[in-house]
Amino acid sequence: MAVGTETRLDSTQLLDRMAADLESVSNRVLEVTELSYPVASSVIREIVLAGGKRLRPLLVLLAGRPFAYEQQFDALVTAAAGVELLHIASLVHDDTIDHAAVRRGKPTLNSVMSVGGTILVGDFLFAQSAMLAARTGDVRVVAVFADTLGKLCDGQLLELFDAHKLDQELDTYLRRISGKTASLFAGAAEMGAILGRASEVEIQEIRSFADETGLAFQIRDDVLDLTTTDLALGKPAGNDLRQGTVTLPTLLYAQQVDPASADWGFLNRVITDDDVSEDEIGELIARIRASGAIQEALALADDFQQKALRRLEIIRTSEHRENLARWAELALAAG
Amino acid sequence: MAVGTETRLDSTQLLDRMAADLESVSNRVLEVTELSYPVASSVIREIVLAGGKRLRPLLVLLAGRPFAYEQQFDALVTAAAGVELLHIASLVHDDTIDHAAVRRGKPTLNSVMSVGGTILVGDFLFAQSAMLAARTGDVRVVAVFADTLGKLCDGQLLELFDAHKLDQELDTYLRRISGKTASLFAGAAEMGAILGRASEVEIQEIRSFADETGLAFQIRDDVLDLTTTDLALGKPAGNDLRQGTVTLPTLLYAQQVDPASADWGFLNRVITDDDVSEDEIGELIARIRASGAIQEALALADDFQQKALRRLEIIRTSEHRENLARWAELALAAG
Repeated sequence: MAVGTETRLDSTQLLDRMAADLESVSNRVLEVTELSYPVASSVIREIVLAGGKRLRPLLVLLAGRPFAYEQQFDALVTAAAGVELLHIASLVHDDTIDHAAVRRGKPTLNSVMSVGGTILVGDFLFAQSAMLAARTGDVRVVAVFADTLGKLCDGQLLELFDAHKLDQELDTYLRRISGKTASLFAGAAEMGAILGRASEVEIQEIRSFADETGLAFQIRDDVLDLTTTDLALGKPAGNDLRQGTVTLPTLLYAQQVDPASADWGFLNRVITDDDVSEDEIGELIARIRASGAIQEALALADDFQQKALRRLEIIRTSEHRENLARWAELALAAG
Repeated sequence: MAVGTETRLDSTQLLDRMAADLESVSNRVLEVTELSYPVASSVIREIVLAGGKRLRPLLVLLAGRPFAYEQQFDALVTAAAGVELLHIASLVHDDTIDHAAVRRGKPTLNSVMSVGGTILVGDFLFAQSAMLAARTGDVRVVAVFADTLGKLCDGQLLELFDAHKLDQELDTYLRRISGKTASLFAGAAEMGAILGRASEVEIQEIRSFADETGLAFQIRDDVLDLTTTDLALGKPAGNDLRQGTVTLPTLLYAQQVDPASADWGFLNRVITDDDVSEDEIGELIARIRASGAIQEALALADDFQQKALRRLEIIRTSEHRENLARWAELALAAG
């Protein structure tokens, strides 16, 4: 928990500085995920140890850091572990739904276990994450936790049922990515600020900072799916189109296309049909990129990012402002 | 909430007396399960309205009733709705795992929706149930809630992974049914007593009463699978054997059989093989019934039931003792 005196740092330095605290979080996650079923237990252990970017637990800690961090350290670590475990539980169910084979470079639980097993292990991890939220002893933190889980499920249900509609409003898209991605960032930040005993206005601004960063993160992630190739992303570009998911660039492109035209027919076919060729995916990607929709989407992401950063003015100490700004850079670099 | 003066009542009278309060619980469940996805929304509504036996929310209310019931009524209704929703969420995932087609006389969610959809709707219902627990504003209730969910998952995981072992200890069987069934009864009773502001010793005795009733309930349910036929149970007798699940009567029978004998080979084959004929299931049921294992299992259920009822001596008012005793009768009649 040593606090440096410099006010400028890069994100690697931020991670170095927070390494010991993040280690406490991982240990708490491991403690509560001990299972008496050897296969599930070792797979979960590998997922936790592989670590991922730990953006969410880091955010819980950093949101509490400008305030009563030392006094509330144990509760903050508990909440951060709860948030990370909620994220892992949600990934276990996501991977089951998507039949994903690899996560964080390791085989997914669903690749070594029945659907029934992964549903139950995911539920068990949800239970343990709720237990950690309860263990903070703060009923408001528990309420934020439950609300976050509800929003997360709502976003995922929207993705499953409504994501293939070409005529969706921008608001529908934003509600979907807000639930799917930004809600957990926003909830993590809110829990951290509450436990740090920030003032109400500080709590709300820090929550909004995380929420808007989450929106920027997900828009960039959606853009990347259309602009980068296998190697950089670790998955084939155009994956969203292949699954029939309409993300922001596709939505903005669709708004330019006449619903009576052949172009619309082509667009509609790629999104809704099951037997679309790789050439057709490539052709649609080219059309979207030529339309300016990518730039328009990135401009919206930038708006959210700038709005998010201005929220940090509420934090008086420049060092703690810097920490959160670097966290946002880390998050957006990951997006 | 009218309280009668008679001290003897049958279970129908108990349900009549509690009907208005149970209606408040159902309304609260419906409020928080409004979904913007028409199919899921109407299926969930049907499951809630079909009602089932509502044993768990009834228990929350009755556990709070001897104490500060009127003052704490709103929190008790909220907790009861949370418990019922947790039960429904768990049924949604169970039915998905078991590929069940009908629940409470209605088509299951998984019969009209993809696996991905039912996983997410189940998760959403877990989220809403956690939100209701948080809304009681009592951090201990939330902790009991999270602990109950954890035990429930543990019991179901044990059923999935260990239930087919013929050499399991009685303790393993009890831990499994304790998690799968008794934990939610015990948690419901504990939440009700806590919210009713019972004393610590009252809370523990009421919890144990519900826990032991749950064990008796599940043992009887397991026995029924070997002793009743289609019509009474609504499912084919011997279902557990067909799925390779070793319940108490089978376990007790296995303890009498020499592992080197042909009888053991037959038993082992029925439990572990996939291509077992109906005749073989019938033959194994006949052997188990002839062995006295059914009577032995029922005697253990009776022990738990008697132990449970003695716990009620902690409750001073005979009327409230009676209410809980009638609840146990209702539960055991359902088992």
